[in-house]
Amino acid sequence: MSKGLPDRSNDFSAWYTQVVNRAGLADHGPVKGTMVIKPYGFQLWENIKETFDKMIKETGHVNAYFPLFIPKSFLAKEAEHVEGFAKECAVVTHTRLKSDPDKGVVVDPESKLEEEIIVRPTSETVIWSMYKKWIQSYRDLPVLINQWANVVRWEMRTRLFLRTSEFLWQEGHTAHSTPEEAEKETLDILELYRQLAEDHLAVPVYTGLKTDSEKFAGAERTYCIEAMMGDKRALQAGTSHNLGQNFAKAFGVTFQTKDNKEELVWATSWGVSTRLIGAVILTHGDDKGLRLPPRIAPIQVVIIPITKNEDQANQLKTYLNPMTEELRSSGVRIFEDWTNNSPGFKFNEWEMKGVPLRMEVGPRDIKEEKVVLVRRDSKEKLFISKDSVLENIQELLEDIQENLLRQARDFRDENTHAVQDYTEFKEVIKQGGFVRCGWNGDSKVEAKIKEETKATVRCIPFNENPQGLTCIKTGEEAKHEVIFAKAY
Amino acid sequence: MSKGLPDRSNDFSAWYTQVVNRAGLADHGPVKGTMVIKPYGFQLWENIKETFDKMIKETGHVNAYFPLFIPKSFLAKEAEHVEGFAKECAVVTHTRLKSDPDKGVVVDPESKLEEEIIVRPTSETVIWSMYKKWIQSYRDLPVLINQWANVVRWEMRTRLFLRTSEFLWQEGHTAHSTPEEAEKETLDILELYRQLAEDHLAVPVYTGLKTDSEKFAGAERTYCIEAMMGDKRALQAGTSHNLGQNFAKAFGVTFQTKDNKEELVWATSWGVSTRLIGAVILTHGDDKGLRLPPRIAPIQVVIIPITKNEDQANQLKTYLNPMTEELRSSGVRIFEDWTNNSPGFKFNEWEMKGVPLRMEVGPRDIKEEKVVLVRRDSKEKLFISKDSVLENIQELLEDIQENLLRQARDFRDENTHAVQDYTEFKEVIKQGGFVRCGWNGDSKVEAKIKEETKATVRCIPFNENPQGLTCIKTGEEAKHEVIFAKAY
Repeated sequence: MSKGLPDRSNDFSAWYTQVVNRAGLADHGPVKGTMVIKPYGFQLWENIKETFDKMIKETGHVNAYFPLFIPKSFLAKEAEHVEGFAKECAVVTHTRLKSDPDKGVVVDPESKLEEEIIVRPTSETVIWSMYKKWIQSYRDLPVLINQWANVVRWEMRTRLFLRTSEFLWQEGHTAHSTPEEAEKETLDILELYRQLAEDHLAVPVYTGLKTDSEKFAGAERTYCIEAMMGDKRALQAGTSHNLGQNFAKAFGVTFQTKDNKEELVWATSWGVSTRLIGAVILTHGDDKGLRLPPRIAPIQVVIIPITKNEDQANQLKTYLNPMTEELRSSGVRIFEDWTNNSPGFKFNEWEMKGVPLRMEVGPRDIKEEKVVLVRRDSKEKLFISKDSVLENIQELLEDIQENLLRQARDFRDENTHAVQDYTEFKEVIKQGGFVRCGWNGDSKVEAKIKEETKATVRCIPFNENPQGLTCIKTGEEAKHEVIFAKAY
Repeated sequence: MSKGLPDRSNDFSAWYTQVVNRAGLADHGPVKGTMVIKPYGFQLWENIKETFDKMIKETGHVNAYFPLFIPKSFLAKEAEHVEGFAKECAVVTHTRLKSDPDKGVVVDPESKLEEEIIVRPTSETVIWSMYKKWIQSYRDLPVLINQWANVVRWEMRTRLFLRTSEFLWQEGHTAHSTPEEAEKETLDILELYRQLAEDHLAVPVYTGLKTDSEKFAGAERTYCIEAMMGDKRALQAGTSHNLGQNFAKAFGVTFQTKDNKEELVWATSWGVSTRLIGAVILTHGDDKGLRLPPRIAPIQVVIIPITKNEDQANQLKTYLNPMTEELRSSGVRIFEDWTNNSPGFKFNEWEMKGVPLRMEVGPRDIKEEKVVLVRRDSKEKLFISKDSVLENIQELLEDIQENLLRQARDFRDENTHAVQDYTEFKEVIKQGGFVRCGWNGDSKVEAKIKEETKATVRCIPFNENPQGLTCIKTGEEAKHEVIFAKAY
């Protein structure tokens, strides 16, 4: 803990790796590309999960669980889908090990499966094979099911939380009787994602539509929330797909309409993952480590007693007790650090872990009937009367939550540039930042820009205004105003 | 819903399959042996999970997440462990699919992994490989980590919830500095399992020790909770293992003691799974379907309005509104069934789904300012004044919870027989039931009895009293009093 973090402005990537490690969020698993989410990181995930789970349940969704294993033939049923996932599939081929006198434990060749099994990279196919059984009539619709699960996409270049071979996520899979209802669902969920990101994670996002080249394999339309990280690169933080009738067609899922016709069902799917933890780190982190938004922070207030001996410790405990009881019973998540480490060590450690508020209490504070509060976001130090601790802490937590969002939004807005000229475009992309500009809607032009600058269209924002814009690359009339950036 | 269930006393197995299906709890997945947990079944699991999660957090445990994938070599590090799991491992060998002009989508042979990967059947090995990195000193101990996860054990003969190739569970993995502390943890958790089973699932259990032949592969001692199902067979509902230093040795996990020595760490692991849902069905179900204990029931009260037309429906809504609001705000989980199905259809459906209380309300009830309540457990019908609905429902739910436990306990006790003679033993096992008897402690004798009767030692109960008993098979002095039964 004594050494500082790598310089954020110089080596953002090394800084990120160190923060994840030193804050005790996650570790690498033994199989390349896998991730261990440590208890502190997992509490963060539990808080995010609980928040979103409540949101979807309040809007009529229910949870279920579908199998990890998908027959290979299922994946192949939707052409674009298999194309999109074929290159990153973990394939199960055998079901038994045996002892070999020479080689130790080996795979038993006699246990070879007739049809290979895919470890789900996403669950559209297995779920729509079940919907085929469950949906017959308009009375069975809509189906509004979500699952919290692990999925596997084989990755070569991995980074904890951002890109790992296995990750945790939620995936919603809904079935509808009209295209309008499916489209509404897709957009309603996107709005929940925006709320989750902005109101809870304090991560400001652009909402919009993906271009064809970036849409989900098997979707008609993919909507997304896109955020700017501390290095001015973009992070796709959540996607919501209107799948049209593609999966219903692939799995033959039809329903009887009210007027007795048979029609294919309309579908959506949508997901956010443990990647959101990466977004929180990359958005709010600073030179001292993590800065966590109070609403999702595992610990909102860490209490550091400053004592020289056991007598003082006992006095402090007596002094603190009514305050901690009041805080706990009001739902404030507190932690008291009574370890033997020095106060300086503790300050550094809890700053690294991003706890929004630190409360220091020593013998002098008892005399003066106060406590010292230090904000993680602004480092501001406040002296608070012991009788108004709860009230002050509640207000401060709200203020920190808002401040983190405001800082991130200001940063993003400062680094989002409306550009009309390709030379300027390249300069902004090189320096880092988002570019808002016109685009003629041609995938080839998009690909060419990516090739030349590594920037991709992050989204066609809902508030686009292409009128009067020209395509940044070709000079033709713009079909869309889009946001370009280099992305994670 | 019109046809009755198969006769429980005649074909318990067919009855079980039908209840799982008709109550909408689960379905078979496309890959043989996999399970889809449908929303109603999953809500049951969520309630069980939430209950136990709270218990372990209150006792100082934290959640984390470890990878699904384990290198084959890790599994082989603990000899008994690999022996126990080798025959049921899903093995990942490749990481890519490709298109083949003749065969369609095939596994890309060039993506073959150097070392095969095992889909976790349980996580001791991957977790202890991480503890090796995390534990250095006595200051790092104890580690009290749990994870909620899916695991895979390849099964040929599967039954939903009871035995499936993939299932959901929690697995606790703790590390300690002394054998006494590890033993205490093992037993503390067993007591939490007992509370979960008896106080929440209303499933009475025997607590005790497994014999060597039934203990976990890699454990020193396995403790368990064992319950009697409605067909008088035993179901192992949870296990808690004292792993000694076996996994610490296999992965070289040592710690520096307070007096500067280096010692191997002491370990426990413990788990309960979605099998608990099977236990609930098999313990409480009757000729009408499920009977759910109120504390874990997704719906505690189903409201069936009896109406002839829309006018009546509107009057009923007005009448019901203050009651449903009061119930909801008091945390009672209610559901109003306003579908067009007939009352008779609805009664059957919600009985099948095991909802503890049914509330019927019709025009006459408005006039008389009452409601009708029908208990699922006893079928008793009660007429309740509308002003005391909440109070009555809360009391009734408590009473149903207790009654289900009492009924199950009476049933178990009536079918548990103290037996001293092997002929009688065989008769009881044949008729169905638990046998309490003496055993000389010899695994060979245990195996012989299993061969002859299919009965196994379910546990050496904590309240055993071997004094004066003789071995049921050999007539020798008994080393233990044990419980024998045929098991799931």
